Amino acid sequence: MPFVDVAALHRFAPEKMQKIGLAETDDLFCDIYCLEPGQEQKPHTHDDATKLYYVLEGTGSFLSGDEKRDLSPGSLTWAPPGVPHGIRATDRLVVLAIMSPNPNRKG
Amino acid sequence: MPFVDVAALHRFAPEKMQKIGLAETDDLFCDIYCLEPGQEQKPHTHDDATKLYYVLEGTGSFLSGDEKRDLSPGSLTWAPPGVPHGIRATDRLVVLAIMSPNPNRKG
Repeated sequence: MPFVDVAALHRFAPEKMQKIGLAETDDLFCDIYCLEPGQEQKPHTHDDATKLYYVLEGTGSFLSGDEKRDLSPGSLTWAPPGVPHGIRATDRLVVLAIMSPNPNRKG
Repeated sequence: MPFVDVAALHRFAPEKMQKIGLAETDDLFCDIYCLEPGQEQKPHTHDDATKLYYVLEGTGSFLSGDEKRDLSPGSLTWAPPGVPHGIRATDRLVVLAIMSPNPNRKG
């Protein structure tokens, strides 16, 4: 079913950021991340994959490499392999998150 | 410069769809496609890559495989390798387009 109404799939939880899968092939996965204010995806690094974030709703602080920026809807950032990246939500935040290649489909 | 204000980069032309590069690594590229009403990206297939479209503005008819759907902002579709895909703009349309792996960075 290759057509998805992303807004219909938003889901938040008080415990932690929610990840909702939208699309997956051998080459990539595409999720939305839904964060309540103050929730985060802690800075981390993928040795063999690129991560790309596109802000759909809300605002947050995004790390890519040694730079941190406040991003709002319509802004994008990414991290090539080996580059630290992370998110901290300022207010309720929805982010399109794409990882390539897909670490769930090695080989 | 890993932070991009996508809306600032919209660009349309009467001759054909405009492709504007936003992000590129060995693993993927991310563009926006800007289409005037009636402009299209003709149905085509990538043998070795996944294409993903996310609608930012406007509406259009999107093909993926043997299905065609009218999509509006907040909707997403994708085509794994070997699956035909294309776009025809109904009204002024802006689409986030991601291709993985990046065909410009083979090897």
